[in-house]
Parts: sequence; structure tokens; C-alpha cells
Amino acid sequence: MKLSQRSGTIAQSEIRSMTLSCNAVQGINMAQGVCDLEIPREVIEGAKRAMDEGVNIYTPTEGLPRLRQAIADKMQRFYEVEIEPNQVLVSDGATGAFYTACMALLNPGDEVILFEPYYGYHRSTLLSVGAVPTYVRLEAPQWKLDIGALEAVVTSKTRAMVICNPANPSGKVFTRGELEAIGAFAEAHDLIVFADEMYEHFLYDGAVHVTALSVPCLQNRCVVLSGFSKVFSITGWRLGYAISSREVIEAMAQFNDLIYVCAPAPLQIGAAEGLEKLGDGYYTELSRIHQHKRDIFCDALRSVGLIPSVPMGAYYVMTDVSRVIGNDDYEKAMAILEKTGVASVPGRAFYHDDAGKNMVRFCYSKPIDVLEEAAERIRRL
Amino acid sequence: MKLSQRSGTIAQSEIRSMTLSCNAVQGINMAQGVCDLEIPREVIEGAKRAMDEGVNIYTPTEGLPRLRQAIADKMQRFYEVEIEPNQVLVSDGATGAFYTACMALLNPGDEVILFEPYYGYHRSTLLSVGAVPTYVRLEAPQWKLDIGALEAVVTSKTRAMVICNPANPSGKVFTRGELEAIGAFAEAHDLIVFADEMYEHFLYDGAVHVTALSVPCLQNRCVVLSGFSKVFSITGWRLGYAISSREVIEAMAQFNDLIYVCAPAPLQIGAAEGLEKLGDGYYTELSRIHQHKRDIFCDALRSVGLIPSVPMGAYYVMTDVSRVIGNDDYEKAMAILEKTGVASVPGRAFYHDDAGKNMVRFCYSKPIDVLEEAAERIRRL
Repeated sequence: MKLSQRSGTIAQSEIRSMTLSCNAVQGINMAQGVCDLEIPREVIEGAKRAMDEGVNIYTPTEGLPRLRQAIADKMQRFYEVEIEPNQVLVSDGATGAFYTACMALLNPGDEVILFEPYYGYHRSTLLSVGAVPTYVRLEAPQWKLDIGALEAVVTSKTRAMVICNPANPSGKVFTRGELEAIGAFAEAHDLIVFADEMYEHFLYDGAVHVTALSVPCLQNRCVVLSGFSKVFSITGWRLGYAISSREVIEAMAQFNDLIYVCAPAPLQIGAAEGLEKLGDGYYTELSRIHQHKRDIFCDALRSVGLIPSVPMGAYYVMTDVSRVIGNDDYEKAMAILEKTGVASVPGRAFYHDDAGKNMVRFCYSKPIDVLEEAAERIRRL
Repeated sequence: MKLSQRSGTIAQSEIRSMTLSCNAVQGINMAQGVCDLEIPREVIEGAKRAMDEGVNIYTPTEGLPRLRQAIADKMQRFYEVEIEPNQVLVSDGATGAFYTACMALLNPGDEVILFEPYYGYHRSTLLSVGAVPTYVRLEAPQWKLDIGALEAVVTSKTRAMVICNPANPSGKVFTRGELEAIGAFAEAHDLIVFADEMYEHFLYDGAVHVTALSVPCLQNRCVVLSGFSKVFSITGWRLGYAISSREVIEAMAQFNDLIYVCAPAPLQIGAAEGLEKLGDGYYTELSRIHQHKRDIFCDALRSVGLIPSVPMGAYYVMTDVSRVIGNDDYEKAMAILEKTGVASVPGRAFYHDDAGKNMVRFCYSKPIDVLEEAAERIRRL
């Protein structure tokens, strides 16, 4: 059977291919953000009880009312943002939420600005719906925002931009001032802003998460994307959501129905119970533990002359690996895997040109014993 | 925010809209194939144990090896078809399997033949990837296949066809002879055959399921689609799969990774346990019970002058509702809902023109007490 022309356009994801290489040598997978930590009991027990109680059939494509309400309540609780449950679409991960948002809002040929380094799924999803990514480079280690660079890249075809905040892979946390500047820019050029806030609960050194929905210039032109994979360590449950205007959510729901039907029914209840029952301590502890892991791993990197861009949020660390032998980022990542058994993602996964050729990304969201073992191995590089 | 041009092209699904109307009057929903029956304990317990044992993170996008193996074993067990686990892609329902198959194999403008009445998701999915459905009408109540009609519609642009076997909504079960004739036709015109076999275990009056993979002319040109929603009554778990050549599965996996990441991890183990542990009795009982329900409901329909096309498989019944007051199928379905509280799907959901204007589809896969209540209500029409 002959494959479609589309088939050639989707590159094998570097994350997936490094995960396979890592499994082949039974290494420590710091390539994929699998987040293999303990899951809150509330979440597991909620899902199990839902199964026993018969929450196993199709849900409304927008998600179970209880979960949509819990997400609305969460926005009030953490950010004092008031939204209605019908402004929420539950989807098959934030991946599904972003895919349906792109289908509902972008036309082929629309230009969409991505900050670089970017999250590969954002770019691949844009390409797969026929949008044209354009790039604004942020430079390590500070990833400072320059609004002038945004002005330089915007054209009459620019229709949207993507903010990943806290950012995967850079760990940048956008300040309110930066978001207001982006908001003014988006307003001036009438842009949609996709705000991927998946890592909202992973914040270090006192950094504060500012949701796009709390920024006046952004709140009527943004689609906020988030999910439960990271905050509850359930990347395999495939549960995320989008928040936007009712009209946008209804348009997205048509595509969600067609492509996903609905998010996994009993697992939706698990996520709802997590949101409803977990106290603030759960979330502060999440940041505290990850900050500790960040520090352990960054110390190990520095000790062997690898230079981390110390992240303020999320749980990845972009690392300058210039000193590692190899012609490019791929060879360097493979050299690290071969010498230490620790897998990372080559920098090319995050740049559209060769700017990542001396970079790799490590994910440090691992159980503490695994993380310490990984740090120990890196020290032997 | 302005919606995309695509947004206008996705019609609200009639099934979704009738479900909403049904919920509004707290009626009996025979519109959606929700299959709200008891789930085998093996399936529930398998999923719950998997959660406790930590199967909660990303799986390989192709599915957990254990489930891919169980699916391969199932094809041997029921159909004596030998396939390798790497010929299986587990996806987010058969919906996800079909969507990724279309992305991997179809180019915009490719014509794809659908038998009419068709399953609406097949048509919507084809449209959403830019393919052009063409139609071969099968006529109630026998839905007899006429290869001449296929020859009449095929053009140089025809790239594929879809068989739904057993068919939603008609209940037609294709015989081996019919599939061989389709195979010869597909071979002559070098067509891909998407074979949706979701209802393979719902067979009546001694009908036998013939998988496309067992038909010599089809086995190298088909993508078989099936899933666990119906056979294990877990429509909300979002678990289905495709079987094809390794090359096609690998191409589909790229899209599955991009759009779905993976199917819900712990639920995959539940499905695997169901396949591994349930004896043949489970499957024969499934057909027996549904045949009984079919008969109860078809009797009720006939008693008030509605004419069912008695299905040989699946669990829907296309019904001629000419005698119900109303200008078209939508008004007739609404009249039935208003008078009896029983929701059905207007015929237009299954035809590209007005051929369904005197038809509705009922789903009779309901718990027996609900089904008997529905039959009772229909008798009062």
C-alpha cells in the first residue's frame, strides 16, 4: 500500500527515538517527560471507584460535568480567574486539546509564532494542520524576551502565537510584565495566543505562575491548555483540557467528537477527585521536591563541565554539551547514553535549524533514587 | 476569535444532538451505541490492578506489547489468521485507528467508496482529511451487494473503499463470497480496503464473521479496524486497534504519536486480560443475548407498523418509519422521542442525500429491563 504524501512530512520524534535507544541499553530515560512518580491515592481510588460504579461509557465530548466544574473551580482557587464550566473542553491530553484548537482556529497557510527552543509537539501539530511556524529565538541561559524580535517576525499572515509557560524545554517562567507585553503585541496584530500551561505547578526559587487568562489583553484571545499528566503523574491516562470562550470551545468540541470521541471516562473522575480533594500542600510539595531534584542534577552536570540553563519552572534542563565528543547534538546525546546509560534529547528537537547542535535536554522528574543514580552516572562522564 | 474554515465543514453529529435531546427529556437513549451493559470482571480488575502496579505512564505509541500480542493471538483463535504483534497499532478507539489510517494512507482529493447507509464517523473522518467519499447504495431490507454498482462508481481517482462488517447501521454481515468479489474488485483497481470489524462478535441466526484478513485478495491491501468498546462494553475507555502490514502500521504510528500519544495505559491491560481470560462462552453469549434483544425490539416495531430491516449482525436496526407523522426523518425521530421517550437517530445520518428521510436507527444494546421498557413504550406509539 502506498503511503500518503502527509506520511513523509511527520518526522520520527527525537523523544520517541531516544526512548527506544534508551530501552535498548536499559538506560535511565531522562529523554521523555514520563513523570514516573507516585500518583496521589485520591486520583487512583477515584478512577477505580468510577469503574466499579459504571462510569465506563462515552462521556459528553466536552468532558464529564463534574470534571469541567472542578477545572473551573481550580482556576478560581489558584489564580482568582472566573470561568464557566462550559468554557472548558476535556480532551485526550493537552495534546488533544491543542490539536483540536488548531483544527478549530487555524487555516492552512496561517503563520504561527513559536518561541525557540520550542516543544516539538507544538511545531509538529502546527505543520500537520497546514499552519506555517515562524520562530523567535530566546537565548540561553536567561531566555530573555525581546518584543522587538516578535515585531520583526510578524506578517499579515500571522494568525497566532504559542507560549509555553512554564516552558518546555527551557524552564522559562514568563513574568506578568512579559505576558502583558505579549498581550499588547497580540492585540496590536489581532493574534490568537495558545498558552500551554501544562507545568503550572512546577515552579522554583519563588517563581509565580501567571495564567494567560489573568492578563487583560490576553483573556479574550487565548486558548489555555493544560492537563493532569504532570501534576498527578499520569502521563499514560491521556487527560488534558482547554479553556477559552464558549464559542471556541464549542467549535473545538466538534473536532474533539470526531477525532477523540471523549477522554477516558473513569479516569476523568480520578482527575476530578484529585482536583477536589488535594490540599495546597500537595502542590507546594511538588515544586519543592522538583527544585531539590533540579539542584542535584544541575550540580552533577556542572561537575563534569556540562552547562545547565537552570530552569525556573517545568522539569527539564537544557544543557550545553559542547565539551562532549561528537559532531552534533545527536552524536553527543548518543555518546552520553553510551558512556553513562543516561538518555537525553538532542537539541535539534527544539530548534528548526542547527542552533541546538551543542544542546541536549534532560528531564529530571524521576523518582529520587533513580535521579541520584543518574546524577552519579553523569559525574563519571 | 475567528474560527477556521474547517470549522464550518464539520456538521454536528446527529447522534450527539439526539443524545442531547434525549437527555433533556430523560428518555431512553437508543440513539447512541453506548453499550451500557455489564463489563466482564476480568477487564475491570485487570485495569484496576494495572493502576495499582504503576501502569500509568506513556506506553509505546503502538500499544503495550502484551496487548498487541493478545490481539495477534485473538486473530489466530477466532479466524486462524496469523499476524505478528508488530502488525497491530493500538489507538484511541477504532475512531483513532481509522483517523490515523486515513492520515497515513490518503491524500486530499482521493476518492473513497462508502457503502450507503454508512457510519457517519467514516464519512466525517474522510472529509476531515480531504478525501472525497463516493457512494454505493445498498437497499433495505436485504442490503444486497451488486458489484456492478461498485464498477459504476470507481474512477481513476478512487484510492480506497470502506467495508463495515458487520455493518453499522444496516446490520449486514458480508459473506465470504461477497468479500471475495470485493477483493477481486479492489485488486483490479488497486484499492486499499478499510475493514471496520468493530461488531465482529455480534452475529445472529448463525451468521459467521469473515475478517478481511482471511480473504486472499484482501489480506495485503486491507487495514482491519476493531476495538474493545462494544465487545467489553467499555465505549468510554477509548481503546481500539488497527491491523495491517508492518509498513502501514509504522506510518500510522507516526500520526498516532502526534495526535494521540498513546491509548490509556492501565485500560490497555484491562483489555488484554479480557482477551486472554474470557472463554468462548463469553462471545457466544454476547450474540445470543443480543439476538434475543433484537427480536424483542423488532417485534415491538412491527406491532405498530414500523418496518425493521432485521439485522444479521451488529446491534442497530434500521427502521422504516414512513407511517410516523412528520415531514422528514428528523421530525419523525423527534415525534417518536416526544411520544415514547425513546431516542433514535434520523436516517440522514447515514445517507448523503435524502434517501434516509423515512428511516431511523435504533440501538438495541441496552440492559434487558431498559430494552423491555423501550419496547413497551414503542408499542404505545
